[in-house]
Amino acid sequence: MPYGLRMKRFAWALLLAVPAPLPAQAPAEPPPIAVDLQVAALRDAALKDDYAWDITEGLTTEIGQRLAGTEAEARARTWAVAKLRAMGFSNVRIEEFPVRTAIRGTESAEILAPFPQHLVVNALGNSASTGPAGVTGEVVAFDNVDALRLAPESAIRGKIVFVDHRMTATQDGIGYGQFGAPRRQGPTIASQKGAIAIVIRSIGTDHNRTPHTGVMSFDNGARPIPAGALSVPDAEQLMRIVKRGKPVTMRLRLESQPIDGTSGNVIAEVPGRDPSLPPVLVSGHLDSWDLGTGAIDDAAGVAIAAAAAKRIMDAGRPLRTIRVVWFGSEELGLFGGLDYRARYGKLPHHALIESDFGADRIYKVDSKLGAARREEARMIGAALAPLGIVTGSFEKADGSDIGPMLADGQPGIGLNQDGTRYFDLHHTSNDTLDKVDIEQLRQNVAAWTATLAILSGGIEPGPKPSRAKQR
Amino acid sequence: MPYGLRMKRFAWALLLAVPAPLPAQAPAEPPPIAVDLQVAALRDAALKDDYAWDITEGLTTEIGQRLAGTEAEARARTWAVAKLRAMGFSNVRIEEFPVRTAIRGTESAEILAPFPQHLVVNALGNSASTGPAGVTGEVVAFDNVDALRLAPESAIRGKIVFVDHRMTATQDGIGYGQFGAPRRQGPTIASQKGAIAIVIRSIGTDHNRTPHTGVMSFDNGARPIPAGALSVPDAEQLMRIVKRGKPVTMRLRLESQPIDGTSGNVIAEVPGRDPSLPPVLVSGHLDSWDLGTGAIDDAAGVAIAAAAAKRIMDAGRPLRTIRVVWFGSEELGLFGGLDYRARYGKLPHHALIESDFGADRIYKVDSKLGAARREEARMIGAALAPLGIVTGSFEKADGSDIGPMLADGQPGIGLNQDGTRYFDLHHTSNDTLDKVDIEQLRQNVAAWTATLAILSGGIEPGPKPSRAKQR
Repeated sequence: MPYGLRMKRFAWALLLAVPAPLPAQAPAEPPPIAVDLQVAALRDAALKDDYAWDITEGLTTEIGQRLAGTEAEARARTWAVAKLRAMGFSNVRIEEFPVRTAIRGTESAEILAPFPQHLVVNALGNSASTGPAGVTGEVVAFDNVDALRLAPESAIRGKIVFVDHRMTATQDGIGYGQFGAPRRQGPTIASQKGAIAIVIRSIGTDHNRTPHTGVMSFDNGARPIPAGALSVPDAEQLMRIVKRGKPVTMRLRLESQPIDGTSGNVIAEVPGRDPSLPPVLVSGHLDSWDLGTGAIDDAAGVAIAAAAAKRIMDAGRPLRTIRVVWFGSEELGLFGGLDYRARYGKLPHHALIESDFGADRIYKVDSKLGAARREEARMIGAALAPLGIVTGSFEKADGSDIGPMLADGQPGIGLNQDGTRYFDLHHTSNDTLDKVDIEQLRQNVAAWTATLAILSGGIEPGPKPSRAKQR
Repeated sequence: MPYGLRMKRFAWALLLAVPAPLPAQAPAEPPPIAVDLQVAALRDAALKDDYAWDITEGLTTEIGQRLAGTEAEARARTWAVAKLRAMGFSNVRIEEFPVRTAIRGTESAEILAPFPQHLVVNALGNSASTGPAGVTGEVVAFDNVDALRLAPESAIRGKIVFVDHRMTATQDGIGYGQFGAPRRQGPTIASQKGAIAIVIRSIGTDHNRTPHTGVMSFDNGARPIPAGALSVPDAEQLMRIVKRGKPVTMRLRLESQPIDGTSGNVIAEVPGRDPSLPPVLVSGHLDSWDLGTGAIDDAAGVAIAAAAAKRIMDAGRPLRTIRVVWFGSEELGLFGGLDYRARYGKLPHHALIESDFGADRIYKVDSKLGAARREEARMIGAALAPLGIVTGSFEKADGSDIGPMLADGQPGIGLNQDGTRYFDLHHTSNDTLDKVDIEQLRQNVAAWTATLAILSGGIEPGPKPSRAKQR
């Protein structure tokens, strides 16, 4: 019922032409909203945007993978500064912080018995290294993490744990929480029960021989053990082999070299006419996993955020400053977001927005601007509806790097992308430019531009900041 | 017009209930065909077949990859003999022959400048080994093999050649000929013009980071050089990088170890009531490339051929002997087919059939049985039509291993599978069991069973050969 009522209110707000008698018990309808003509024009012009493609193509082609803390991520920061300055942004800068990461070495998973063959595997983030000799042991398989939790230590000690699951694709990506448990909790549990290593079925929804890596950590003092992800076809193969009922012996080699490196956020601004007002923060993350070129995770995200800000800049001067943040080291643990929060988290922001769920179309806008700003949130909903975007909750927003600041109480907007195919590609070698659909990317930019046009408080034509001053 | 006339004839043959006046100028229609009830019943029962899945699943799970000439292929032969004997086939045997192959070692393609990054590469069959140091050189790129042919030696000598193409999916796989030229001719041309190595865009229609290997040879005395296939996304990436206009330096490492090994064909029979009649040969190839588990290429093929023969055996004794051949070493150069031809090629066969184009549905049946057997060919077409299979040519049949014998003049049938997604998977690590659709696999078995029921000349219930005699 609450859902039905809410839907009815939106129907009233958005379909003004439809006359219908108000049910006697219905709450008062909010007044209709007319979308500002400037906002609508900026939105529609952005449907021909090339800025976002240009950034996505450039970053993935000229840098490629950019694992946090490596020299590749440093090259990406240099590239980003040059790009954002060339686009005319102001106050372009890098804010560094230290991170620990690991360089991937030789990786293999070989079944020695009963049916000798090689499986495709990649180490998870924070895996222990097996060293060149690898580890060899009997495989003990579990359908899910709960089965692993319930198993006695005696069944696990000295063995290689394999944890399966049955993640399937959803539009909003809700499965990543529950079905991500083998990666997030599996290694700690396996280690605590004495396993010599763990392999999981990749947290993914595809059937390619492209494992999905991702970060995990050994908690509660658990000793780090080698931890890898098998591709989905390999996990299915291993389960078929296990189910034949004979003891399965595997030699697992996951070599890696830990390094202490430097990461950093790249920040750029469109200065507002009133610098005393809290800024609007638009963001994505610059780092990527090392297997693909990080096109959908998250070159497209930083591109969408910057393209929308650039389109506002091209139109004139917004009332509020727009701050573009390309976070570093998201993949290793949201370290870019935490560094930003440590520096600026106590200052008010007008809104935080992050794009980090691929490059497919936005289908829903959520917001958490507070009750006093409901009108602003409804205005954003009305402006996005012509893009096929439904207004969702007024009580939530999300984002990975901005998550801790949203939890602190900062306001935010959630521009939700269609994630149906996101977990086919996420954290795999298949995350490459060819997976980005330029028309859907443009719909993202249009939605972000309209949202920014509203949040930044009205754009006035006027002298743009000179190029000299930007630098 | 000829196509229209042919279509009309089929319409008359198959849609007997539709009355329509014959145009005055139309040729005489062939008489209508009634499908034999036993054939129809065997066909329809095969739509619930599990034999083919059982073989495909077993071979890919318990053996996995089975590169010709390796101990894995030998294990596959042992597996095959046990399986075919357990299914009740007679005269189950292995016929060995020597082959030379190579064991894949470490493989990598690293762009050193101007944009350092790793690309995904696999060596082609018969590639020279780079050794552990690899080869390093400037990349010179060509849109296709003709552009490479036309280039002066001075542009190529001492460099690493890259050849692109634009293969797209077709139902009948016709693109594999023309767009396969970079693999088949590229290495020889590059070598003859002094290239130190060659990489090609994979001969494939997908966008996965899974290169397509495949055999090639250095002809006309060309010196072997390292030759690899980049995955399609990597080839596109390399072309984007090349088009930036700066010199591109690549370090290519394609290690391999040649071995002289043993391959072999596995042969099994359903003895006919009249052993003096020429046999019907049904086949596929047992070997696979080493990257995937060879599910669609060609576990499904050997499974379809054997399952259909088994269904005839279960029904009774056919007039003619059905000979099941699981060829060895197809991928390295049709060596299994050539060995069979050397042993039996001068003896008459009633028909040759091969399944080697995946596991998707059959959509067309061609035949080359000769003018005197047109009625038999039409009968097969009529029996397959209810499976959605159109009758194609009466003048051709094809198959890789059986190709040379068809060219010798042996009769054959071509049961053409839908290859729309075949070259997404062909010769890649992605050729795994999950790509086989059991319902389409069953449609294949149904079509093969009906075809075999007709070709083998009528099945009579009777005492089946005892298990003891089979061995």
